[in-house]
Amino acid sequence: MAVREKMFSTIASIFKRHGAVTIDTPVFELTEILAGKYGEDSKLIYDLAYQGGEQCSLRYDLTVPFARFLAMNGKEYQNIKRYHIAKVYRRDQPSMSKGRLREFYQCDFDIAGTYDPMIPDAEVLRILCETLDALDIKKYTIKLNHRKILDGIFELCGVPADSIRSISSAVDKLDKLPWSDVKKEMTDEKGLAAEVADKIGEYVQLKGNHLLLDRLYDDMKLVNNGKASEGLQDMKLLLDYLDVFGIRDKISFDLSLARGLDYYTGIIYEAITEEATDGVGSIAAGGRYDNLVGMFSGTNKKGKPSLQIPCVGVSIGVERVFSILMARQQATKSKATEVYVMSVGGSLLKDRMRIARELWDAGINASFMFKNKAKLDKQFTACEKDQIPLAVIIGEDELNQNVVKIKDMRQKDEAQGGGITVERNSMIRELKARL
Amino acid sequence: MAVREKMFSTIASIFKRHGAVTIDTPVFELTEILAGKYGEDSKLIYDLAYQGGEQCSLRYDLTVPFARFLAMNGKEYQNIKRYHIAKVYRRDQPSMSKGRLREFYQCDFDIAGTYDPMIPDAEVLRILCETLDALDIKKYTIKLNHRKILDGIFELCGVPADSIRSISSAVDKLDKLPWSDVKKEMTDEKGLAAEVADKIGEYVQLKGNHLLLDRLYDDMKLVNNGKASEGLQDMKLLLDYLDVFGIRDKISFDLSLARGLDYYTGIIYEAITEEATDGVGSIAAGGRYDNLVGMFSGTNKKGKPSLQIPCVGVSIGVERVFSILMARQQATKSKATEVYVMSVGGSLLKDRMRIARELWDAGINASFMFKNKAKLDKQFTACEKDQIPLAVIIGEDELNQNVVKIKDMRQKDEAQGGGITVERNSMIRELKARL
Repeated sequence: MAVREKMFSTIASIFKRHGAVTIDTPVFELTEILAGKYGEDSKLIYDLAYQGGEQCSLRYDLTVPFARFLAMNGKEYQNIKRYHIAKVYRRDQPSMSKGRLREFYQCDFDIAGTYDPMIPDAEVLRILCETLDALDIKKYTIKLNHRKILDGIFELCGVPADSIRSISSAVDKLDKLPWSDVKKEMTDEKGLAAEVADKIGEYVQLKGNHLLLDRLYDDMKLVNNGKASEGLQDMKLLLDYLDVFGIRDKISFDLSLARGLDYYTGIIYEAITEEATDGVGSIAAGGRYDNLVGMFSGTNKKGKPSLQIPCVGVSIGVERVFSILMARQQATKSKATEVYVMSVGGSLLKDRMRIARELWDAGINASFMFKNKAKLDKQFTACEKDQIPLAVIIGEDELNQNVVKIKDMRQKDEAQGGGITVERNSMIRELKARL
Repeated sequence: MAVREKMFSTIASIFKRHGAVTIDTPVFELTEILAGKYGEDSKLIYDLAYQGGEQCSLRYDLTVPFARFLAMNGKEYQNIKRYHIAKVYRRDQPSMSKGRLREFYQCDFDIAGTYDPMIPDAEVLRILCETLDALDIKKYTIKLNHRKILDGIFELCGVPADSIRSISSAVDKLDKLPWSDVKKEMTDEKGLAAEVADKIGEYVQLKGNHLLLDRLYDDMKLVNNGKASEGLQDMKLLLDYLDVFGIRDKISFDLSLARGLDYYTGIIYEAITEEATDGVGSIAAGGRYDNLVGMFSGTNKKGKPSLQIPCVGVSIGVERVFSILMARQQATKSKATEVYVMSVGGSLLKDRMRIARELWDAGINASFMFKNKAKLDKQFTACEKDQIPLAVIIGEDELNQNVVKIKDMRQKDEAQGGGITVERNSMIRELKARL
């Protein structure tokens, strides 16, 4: 929990640096809000028992509840940078080794609102880089693509409109499978003509940087496709902004990235690292989703959504990051205790309590042994076990002379000869000087 | 959320000062774990739908999950100070005006383990006082009583053993009802003989300080009752320790305090304040519960619990405290943004982005308007709306001269004449000096 809390506070501080606020949504939503948002994975949603009232389900992610919130409160929150670090629930087969749990944290940052193109998108990517840097994740790459470029490619290669999402999800497997397997899925399983698949193959195996963009701009078939052209313009502007933000070297423009979720409408991205405990792994992902809020806003007279708020966001895979941080971690100090109050000989319980009280009053984190007759060696063991840096030691002599002994537990015994003796009324000052 | 987060971090810092760690338990438990722990209120438990696997329910409080956790992991965690700030769920009729929600935060601190008597109990009460002081709650009193004293009183007054808990819960209403009504409940509803009720009445209307304890010690009938005598000894020791911890003036020994929950076995307490938004109200409560962990530990060959870990704890009523803090609050600054980057004339978008990047690199919280053509007055309005203290302003002139203007938004315009001009390479230093 100490590692986890530090990770969360590091992430939150970056989000706040960029002017974000946090919003908390309930752990359960109306079942109908979640229905039809997660494709096949909808079967993993936990429902609450019907006990009268509304039918509710536990949230599956934080994005759909956020979009629902915006649709309900959009007038007030049309422009917002919000983050949310909270648990989500999936009725999956749990596997400790794969880090797959039924209850786990998600950590989302999103920018909602209508702005000039690609500016918020660039800031989200900048925030992702700042976050991974602050978490000290080494060797990461952000794969970047655009749904409109992909859809344009599918269109001009001759993929039927109603097969586009399904072909797209086959493409998304190129990070794990060779092209031959992906082609086989397209043709054998999904009935695509082999020559169409081959044309797709020429595009989706391309990856690179702005030079790839230049190359695509030379492809007049692509440039003349309306969707692809919009995507290329976005990408050109974005790469330009990423340059200004100093993060273009982190980005790989990768035409094989397709992302599973249906609701993306613009750029999509995924951060991968070689440092993941289970090999190269995804540690963050996101994209632009301009139509999700409209799905919850109701419709106007013309049958259009009555409120449409474009959004772009990223979800940090905090459970995976947590595994990386834990693997790195040496023995963690879980307690914040700064001073352990001990006595030598006799009980002196109330005297230890009196000193602890003084320390608490001064805002110092202090503990003592909950025993009348506390043995010195046991007190030392307790102090060492919790890696408490300082000890205050009293005995009859110290009490009579109105002094205390201070021992720095971080130093070897010889260096300080059993501690220094200070006046009782300078105890707080002496302790603070050593903390 | 800003007020809420500040409240939580204040509370957590006090808990950490006393050597506590936090433990996170799942939001749902096996239904059987929760069954029979909450008396009549068990009907308020949310169950999950049965979708195969185990039958689960949402947690109703944080104490039962903690006790279940200790029973499962007790060997490793037999001595622990733990806190947990998290949401609990009750299928109650929600009422915004009464602050009664179906999902709300609880904030628990508990000390588990076998120690010398009343030392952890005293520290829990000290922590409660430190917390309420840190939250700046004024005029609070901690009502204190002991289950064994109460049960001894019931015994010697002649209450049948199987009526003790039900008579006890009638006594607990003395904070809201006059004695005559409580007596009526005992006799008319619960079938107690009038003379037995009258005897109880002589005791449970007593409240005071150590002088009340002295008075009870003079009552030989009470002193000769085994249970009551144990309770009196505990109380004597506790008041002594509370004196050492400097909080005895906050305590009112109150024989009418009985507390609803069945699982308390020793001291019980409740903090009330006159500052509550709905009149005098309870803002924290707790007590000692020595047998709860044993209910989850399984039994040994002799039919006794195989693991018994005594506990004492307190739950801070954070939703109520939150209402008090909100009622006090003036306009809250929800964002942490420190600098707003603006431009005069033309677009200069990339120049604003470049400066924002420099500020982020320096760890400064900065924002700018997501527009190519940003009007100066709109930028000023955005800056003022979020109460951002500093503005960096650039125009063509500033860019040509490699300078920026810094304007302190907290000062009246006249005082600074539209801001000061500084060299671009001293911008960060100048900003930090003003933050």
